[in-house]
Amino acid sequence: MNTILLNSDDVDEHARLADVIDAVEQAFGAFERGDTQMPAKSYIDLPQYNGDFRSMPAYLETDDWDAAGLKWVNVHPDNPTDHDLPTVLGTMIYSDPETAVPLAIMDGTMLTMKRTGAAAAVATDHLAVEDASSLGIVGAGVQSYTQLEAISEVRDITEVVVSDPDTERVERFVEAFDDRFDIRSGSISEAGHCDILSTVTPVEDPIVGPDDVGEHTHINAMGADAEGKHELADDLLRAARIVIDDHEQCTHSGEINVPYHEGVLTDDDIYGEIGEIVVGAKDGRTAETGVTVFDSTGLAIQDVAAAHVVYENAREGDDGYAFGLIDTEQ
Amino acid sequence: MNTILLNSDDVDEHARLADVIDAVEQAFGAFERGDTQMPAKSYIDLPQYNGDFRSMPAYLETDDWDAAGLKWVNVHPDNPTDHDLPTVLGTMIYSDPETAVPLAIMDGTMLTMKRTGAAAAVATDHLAVEDASSLGIVGAGVQSYTQLEAISEVRDITEVVVSDPDTERVERFVEAFDDRFDIRSGSISEAGHCDILSTVTPVEDPIVGPDDVGEHTHINAMGADAEGKHELADDLLRAARIVIDDHEQCTHSGEINVPYHEGVLTDDDIYGEIGEIVVGAKDGRTAETGVTVFDSTGLAIQDVAAAHVVYENAREGDDGYAFGLIDTEQ
Repeated sequence: MNTILLNSDDVDEHARLADVIDAVEQAFGAFERGDTQMPAKSYIDLPQYNGDFRSMPAYLETDDWDAAGLKWVNVHPDNPTDHDLPTVLGTMIYSDPETAVPLAIMDGTMLTMKRTGAAAAVATDHLAVEDASSLGIVGAGVQSYTQLEAISEVRDITEVVVSDPDTERVERFVEAFDDRFDIRSGSISEAGHCDILSTVTPVEDPIVGPDDVGEHTHINAMGADAEGKHELADDLLRAARIVIDDHEQCTHSGEINVPYHEGVLTDDDIYGEIGEIVVGAKDGRTAETGVTVFDSTGLAIQDVAAAHVVYENAREGDDGYAFGLIDTEQ
Repeated sequence: MNTILLNSDDVDEHARLADVIDAVEQAFGAFERGDTQMPAKSYIDLPQYNGDFRSMPAYLETDDWDAAGLKWVNVHPDNPTDHDLPTVLGTMIYSDPETAVPLAIMDGTMLTMKRTGAAAAVATDHLAVEDASSLGIVGAGVQSYTQLEAISEVRDITEVVVSDPDTERVERFVEAFDDRFDIRSGSISEAGHCDILSTVTPVEDPIVGPDDVGEHTHINAMGADAEGKHELADDLLRAARIVIDDHEQCTHSGEINVPYHEGVLTDDDIYGEIGEIVVGAKDGRTAETGVTVFDSTGLAIQDVAAAHVVYENAREGDDGYAFGLIDTEQ
């Protein structure tokens, strides 16, 4: 019995964004319908290395397919300076739910970028104005690239404004996309006055205020993934229609975690979960909707959905390295 | 950055039992000293496939080394009949705690057998009579082989009695070892009157009673790994000195789970955890000790300890397949 091994390039090639966006949308829908299993992430904290590991197992079932798997991922902020390694390294095991055979083992770092971009695209599709053509991006790090790639799959983006105090990162970002978009560096407020804004920073003090965004801007708040992180000012959040991915994760470590724990935001300020909008239980943007915010923390079912796409596409292309990991002779 | 892939044969070769027994003993000691992290196993239950997945992350630190990793494992009892596959398939990711680099990915099925055998050997070393030379084995399935292999590392075993109603399995077991041991088929009582007994069956109605064992027999109760499983009669357990691997796991799904929940056994009937004996906080066997029972459920730290041995030995032999899973270019 072979397990297919897929490295970063394989995942990049086979996580075709249109497919991943569709799979992640289906995953959000399955979550709303109760057709998922997603035990709470388990953490191993290693303060001696200023790092942690997270185990993210999940299962989901859609009308057409089901999928199971686990992402083993970490956050080691000293990696870049001390070891010339990325802060986050992920490994994904994708398994057949019926037999538990490990069908594929793949790079979970690239996978995370793809499924995170896809989540923003799903939310954008339901919450941005129909004719959105401009996208602002605050924070030009590694996760920002798939924001633009994925969002341009659901809206006809022509104009891009990127804001980051690190000019080298901005230049690199502009260079990567200037053949496809009218792209320029700009202030946070210029980025925020686009039809769509994605914030992708690790800040703990909000950097986007209510005057920094347009009247109908849809904001993807992607950066907050731990207690204390917070990109958007409280009065911006209070005035906006807030859509979350998961109540437990968002109130614990998402964009809303700080104001929620301070009592500045309550459950009454949360419009709903993205899954409710996907299945039609709640409306997305209507003619009356002003600013919208999608608080994305990242769910294990997104990883499994994206891994499903990668595996199916790789298998179709007969790609990856087949390895006999487990001896299945009885 | 390469990840070393190790298949079943690689794990078999490099999980040298003397090393694994030592590492598992150190893991039990670290557990007792509080130098481990072992979040509760998370389960994904898939009744539609009569199966489940379990995620087992862990970290441990000894005086000489530390290690982190995760085993993703399942129980799909219909696999053998419906898919010609084993019931249990495991995949182990072994990671560098300092950087989270996935150093190795290895077959977790073979690893489980090795670390389970090693746990029995550690308990046997502390709880069997010093001059033990006979070993009885009840249940001749796949897990039984490493019982004999591992226990003969800590005692000079010459005589083996194996008991299983499946004569084919008994024959296969006898054949595998008859060049190294005086080995024969026998009744449960004959197996139980050896100096050491390992029970390795999935039964829910006890099959070993108090008259089936010798006055000083040490019993490794390996079979119970789920609620309702129970190999040893209650009056045998009540009369014995009971040593467990972990209170939560043993009372939930170990050999003692049924009588514990019926109130037939209480915490007063549990002598201690194997880690307490390993570090010397409690005595192992003394001149006065009668029958002893080790209730082994299997801890995630055993997998990580065994994976540490496999990785270090494989690296030393420059073995395994090096695969560039994750692109670590900054």
